[in-house]
Amino acid sequence: MASVFDSTTAVNPRGGGRYDAVLDPGWVVGGGVNGGYLLAVIGNALRAEMPDKPDPLAISAYYLAASVPGPAQVQVDVRRSGGTVSVASAELSQGGEARIAALATYGDLDRGADDVQTTALPFDLPPLEQCVPNTMAPEEVRRIAPLMGRFDMRFHPEHVGWALGAPTGVAEMAAWFRLEDGREPDPISLLLVVDALPPVTFNTKGIGWAPTLELTAHVRAKPAPGWLRVRHVSRNVAGGMFEEDCEVWDAEDRLVAQSRQLARLPR
Amino acid sequence: MASVFDSTTAVNPRGGGRYDAVLDPGWVVGGGVNGGYLLAVIGNALRAEMPDKPDPLAISAYYLAASVPGPAQVQVDVRRSGGTVSVASAELSQGGEARIAALATYGDLDRGADDVQTTALPFDLPPLEQCVPNTMAPEEVRRIAPLMGRFDMRFHPEHVGWALGAPTGVAEMAAWFRLEDGREPDPISLLLVVDALPPVTFNTKGIGWAPTLELTAHVRAKPAPGWLRVRHVSRNVAGGMFEEDCEVWDAEDRLVAQSRQLARLPR
Repeated sequence: MASVFDSTTAVNPRGGGRYDAVLDPGWVVGGGVNGGYLLAVIGNALRAEMPDKPDPLAISAYYLAASVPGPAQVQVDVRRSGGTVSVASAELSQGGEARIAALATYGDLDRGADDVQTTALPFDLPPLEQCVPNTMAPEEVRRIAPLMGRFDMRFHPEHVGWALGAPTGVAEMAAWFRLEDGREPDPISLLLVVDALPPVTFNTKGIGWAPTLELTAHVRAKPAPGWLRVRHVSRNVAGGMFEEDCEVWDAEDRLVAQSRQLARLPR
Repeated sequence: MASVFDSTTAVNPRGGGRYDAVLDPGWVVGGGVNGGYLLAVIGNALRAEMPDKPDPLAISAYYLAASVPGPAQVQVDVRRSGGTVSVASAELSQGGEARIAALATYGDLDRGADDVQTTALPFDLPPLEQCVPNTMAPEEVRRIAPLMGRFDMRFHPEHVGWALGAPTGVAEMAAWFRLEDGREPDPISLLLVVDALPPVTFNTKGIGWAPTLELTAHVRAKPAPGWLRVRHVSRNVAGGMFEEDCEVWDAEDRLVAQSRQLARLPR
């Protein structure tokens, strides 16, 4: 059976670096389409334009305006086509209006894949069966976040105060994660995963939209099949903004992606 | 007296978003001009093009090729000119060849400046007089890094093993920092500061150039006058690359900048 993730992030080449996509209403959250989903769409266009460099190593997205379900275009311009890495810019637009500007470095994660020295330790997350499934999210949250239905998430039981009307006061959220359609993770789906959890401000400021200004993700290894573990933390609120750091660990205890975003505090 | 930093990061508007600069040989390190210095040059062009948004909030630089001392051009294209933030792309080129592609969000750090909740704690750094000045760096290092002469740095005494032929084995480096010309820090100079220390790989892999692939900096507050404290750490080596996280704290114990870069391991 075709993967919902794959079919809704697919891009059609139109020549000259232009790709067409159809943004799917199933990925809506708050006032627009989820930023991580858009990053995966852009990631697919970039990969198609740089076929000899299959994997996103680093990608930065600057959000210009909210995107909505429906047709979208991604324009890719390769800026450097190198020996081991290539760099490209990309712009996602709808109706002729730019929505996201991005830059990315692509390469091959199979190169040097055995050279790993990770001193970071996996974060605390109780076994799957002790965690809280997203199907238990309050109706209020599922209504503003249809995309939750695309995920199988199991939240750290100590981080779900936001869903019970009792925010923890701590800007941290961790969960087990897999796609609801059963598709195994890969470097492109990790671009979605780094922006899939509710914002940590649910636990400090209450439930509300926290629009991303900028998000940069580094994909550091190909994830093993199975459940991922994802954690977001924030340590610095200032000037009406907060940073959100994300780590993604795979089923083989490997730190496969790191990201940071700068977002506006909910109003 | 004019600041060396100000005069060597100055840009001249040529119209249509184009700015001319002269890259100064005093900022050379390893095989090119320092990436943080280039970010400050680009930062000045962006600020000149968006005069109503004086401060860089987020900036991402993708390094396409090494830059060399001499004339350079920065082309700025404003992509979104908004109520509280504007977004622009920028490209630094030399001799018609692109060297850096960048995206940035600018705003006004005085807005909401009092809304601060920082749970991050300042890192450990002994008092200034117990730290090791960069003037004691080995001749080998000062030869490949003329830019060291532009800084007054005092390194954590437990992090200078690399300079003594005895790398600590720990990917961490912290130092007191100020510009040698006495110029006080501001949001633009912080773009230099986040890439000013030697790479943490000096302590794990030995002395060698670690070219940046991508660097994203968030400026979170205007720094107070006086010494800054800067720390770089890395927690994940994989695929021949490492991430380097940087924090900059000001003299009033405020976390004023956070950055992360993805760099290649030294060969």
